Amino acid sequence: MKRQGLQFDEEGRLRHFITLDGLDRGTLTEILDSAENFATVGARQVKKVPLLRGKTIANLFFEPSTRTRTTFELAAKRLSADVLNLNISTSSASKGESLLDMLRNLEAMNCDMFVVRHNTSGAAHFIAEHVAPHISVINAGDGWHAHPTQAMLDMFTIRRHKGDFTALRVAIVGDIKHSRVARSEIQALSILGVPEIRVIAPQTLLPPEAERMGVHVYHSIEKGIRDVDVIVMLRLQRERMEGALLPSEDEYFARFGLTEAKLALARPDAIVMHPGPINRGVEIDSAVADGPRSVILEQVSNGLAVRMAIMAKVLGRGPQSEEAA
Amino acid sequence: MKRQGLQFDEEGRLRHFITLDGLDRGTLTEILDSAENFATVGARQVKKVPLLRGKTIANLFFEPSTRTRTTFELAAKRLSADVLNLNISTSSASKGESLLDMLRNLEAMNCDMFVVRHNTSGAAHFIAEHVAPHISVINAGDGWHAHPTQAMLDMFTIRRHKGDFTALRVAIVGDIKHSRVARSEIQALSILGVPEIRVIAPQTLLPPEAERMGVHVYHSIEKGIRDVDVIVMLRLQRERMEGALLPSEDEYFARFGLTEAKLALARPDAIVMHPGPINRGVEIDSAVADGPRSVILEQVSNGLAVRMAIMAKVLGRGPQSEEAA
Amino acid sequence: MKRQGLQFDEEGRLRHFITLDGLDRGTLTEILDSAENFATVGARQVKKVPLLRGKTIANLFFEPSTRTRTTFELAAKRLSADVLNLNISTSSASKGESLLDMLRNLEAMNCDMFVVRHNTSGAAHFIAEHVAPHISVINAGDGWHAHPTQAMLDMFTIRRHKGDFTALRVAIVGDIKHSRVARSEIQALSILGVPEIRVIAPQTLLPPEAERMGVHVYHSIEKGIRDVDVIVMLRLQRERMEGALLPSEDEYFARFGLTEAKLALARPDAIVMHPGPINRGVEIDSAVADGPRSVILEQVSNGLAVRMAIMAKVLGRGPQSEEAA
Repeated sequence: MKRQGLQFDEEGRLRHFITLDGLDRGTLTEILDSAENFATVGARQVKKVPLLRGKTIANLFFEPSTRTRTTFELAAKRLSADVLNLNISTSSASKGESLLDMLRNLEAMNCDMFVVRHNTSGAAHFIAEHVAPHISVINAGDGWHAHPTQAMLDMFTIRRHKGDFTALRVAIVGDIKHSRVARSEIQALSILGVPEIRVIAPQTLLPPEAERMGVHVYHSIEKGIRDVDVIVMLRLQRERMEGALLPSEDEYFARFGLTEAKLALARPDAIVMHPGPINRGVEIDSAVADGPRSVILEQVSNGLAVRMAIMAKVLGRGPQSEEAA
Repeated sequence: MKRQGLQFDEEGRLRHFITLDGLDRGTLTEILDSAENFATVGARQVKKVPLLRGKTIANLFFEPSTRTRTTFELAAKRLSADVLNLNISTSSASKGESLLDMLRNLEAMNCDMFVVRHNTSGAAHFIAEHVAPHISVINAGDGWHAHPTQAMLDMFTIRRHKGDFTALRVAIVGDIKHSRVARSEIQALSILGVPEIRVIAPQTLLPPEAERMGVHVYHSIEKGIRDVDVIVMLRLQRERMEGALLPSEDEYFARFGLTEAKLALARPDAIVMHPGPINRGVEIDSAVADGPRSVILEQVSNGLAVRMAIMAKVLGRGPQSEEAA
Repeated sequence: MKRQGLQFDEEGRLRHFITLDGLDRGTLTEILDSAENFATVGARQVKKVPLLRGKTIANLFFEPSTRTRTTFELAAKRLSADVLNLNISTSSASKGESLLDMLRNLEAMNCDMFVVRHNTSGAAHFIAEHVAPHISVINAGDGWHAHPTQAMLDMFTIRRHKGDFTALRVAIVGDIKHSRVARSEIQALSILGVPEIRVIAPQTLLPPEAERMGVHVYHSIEKGIRDVDVIVMLRLQRERMEGALLPSEDEYFARFGLTEAKLALARPDAIVMHPGPINRGVEIDSAVADGPRSVILEQVSNGLAVRMAIMAKVLGRGPQSEEAA
């Protein structure tokens, strides 16, 4: 059966990477397998493969994010693509050009891929709906909606440590409501067959739809963390404090911050993840962030490999085609 | 007879591309022919030729322009050159270094080409007068004076649609007075032998020297557009409104904006061009901009090919030398 | 005997380039010899060698400096490395990430080298102390402390003109107190065996430790410049005027500015150097800066070659390994 929907081309091949919605376990597993090959590139003397040589990748960052932009830029360069960095707020937006006109122009310049970061939910989807057939769109984070490459690198990290997804307990802790990472993460874990997904948050930081997400809700980290295999800590946006959604940082840390004492309630081989950048002493204690069970920096390395795998896949080049290149 | 002047080297070869003034039909035709070869590069799987490998091209943008900078950057990268982007307002100008000292330094770093954008008429010419013999200068727009690469990509676009220049009627519509595009366009059309060039503008947006430009002046678009083969719409700078040169945007659109009704007065196969970015509903109606006779996005694609051709030419590398590279 | 200290790896090979402190004449000479080979690259048709292909070099500029950043970027690109430019003030610092967390992340992305510019003395040293074993750090200027690549390119320039260091008189003129260039310069000259190093400055611009630097102090340029072979003029930071350390620019120029009259007191074949950007009419007269004895622009060209040599050396690739690459 051919796969359908915005993300697939007419032959049912993955063309965009906007959301995990509608992707099946096979597709995700294929990306994770491909990323294993790309993970070796970062360790080489010459960190470069010619897969996307002569391709043009435009980073369209409507919301600044040095870290995410940097990983996509490096991933593209290690695939030998040419990269354009467009910081849109300082760009032709100032001349009053519409978003669609800007896209039309980049298409006319024969760009092959747009990596889109935007503070509005649905922005990458909107762009994918409107681009020319030769363009692939990758969602690098849109509003509260989705951050699918982050979720995939987290899955890659979990698989490297735990092997199999189908017997895991995973807890996601923090500001679920405003987190695109959490939404994509829950989808990825579900697709890959994780039987027990827990979310741990104060009531004010839970989305109204939490009940329908197929997750177990906890308001106490001490209860929610018990016996889990994987803990995903979310970054606390400081502006939430001002919105009266939260008491002080200190009180948040006391109730929901991950310390060694709380971590001891999880399984002895539990791993601790965080999408970064971390707020030390707010959502996570330095002893845990830098401790033996933290895999936070592995996530960063894995991010390169997973993004290379996704970029190569949507442009129709698996790592196996490298020999031929 | 050897060609002389600032733009030519001692052997009479084109070394800079500052203005169309002093160039002959043969030179322009040669660039257009060369651009035909480069136009195929954008359609390849691997959009890259090694012609300028190991050359260093510095984009010196004293006036921000993401779109123009992007096309030059992509053109240079597809020619395999190394590119430096220098946004001069945020650069060593802040340390009070003089322009000439900055140029001397870039020369000493063995740059090969400066692509110059400046809001002062004559800036690229001034720089070309003062650079070392190994540097080529390309004018990417200077004040109200000239934008010769834009004019060349427009000529390329016209030739692709109309074949021959010597039987055409071309109308340029809008703010002629403040438009470097219009000035270069009129020169290019004249050199290539277009017998009838019309400019259509309110009296306040006509330059005093309009009479001497060899063009036919119209103050009514309905009259001026009649039976033309090519219509070049100019972008209306919004700040002209404040300068009391113009009434409201609505009134401008009513009188000079290109609509389907007005377009119907031109020849049935007339094409509509615009250097972008377009102001929808100010100088052009969306139905026309997105309609079947608009070639606005082709202009963008052609811009890459034409700029590659010009960069390769002034650095002494035609597309024919690619085999040898 | 194995060399030890922060800058060396376990085998005693140079791994970082933070300061000239602790380096011996052999190491400096080796770098200068290697730079001779790289100096030919800038003159080639194809200014590119594959030595660092597939390496990732991050420019971490905590203090803006277009000129220095540009030379490091070009040096890296001519060595075929991939370059990341991170302007830290506009970067994730805004998300409140700590410096060390940022470094950890760049390490995890498999960067190979950090080029660090910082307005705090000791910043590059601090970073080198804390980076992972696979990273090399190059100091591109830290506060008033050191600017060792500038000193090395000056040594290269002196050697090209004077051949031997062991019979030279060198004068450094200007704001010694606030100059990282002066500090590194004095070290380099000492290591290479220059017998007579003079510093010429008003009392307010001399560091308290001047006496212990092994230099001869002069408060009169007319006396200090007499019979020297090399004159290094320092840039006068305009903000020193406001700090009441100096009278007016005019008075400074009258007393310490280098004019042709004062230059006539030096040896007839004396060369004039300046790290740039120059303040014409403040510390140096245009007639001297642009005159036959000025080697200021040669310094810029040499900067590329010397930085390529240093980058290649700390990453373990001499120019001799190019054949094998």
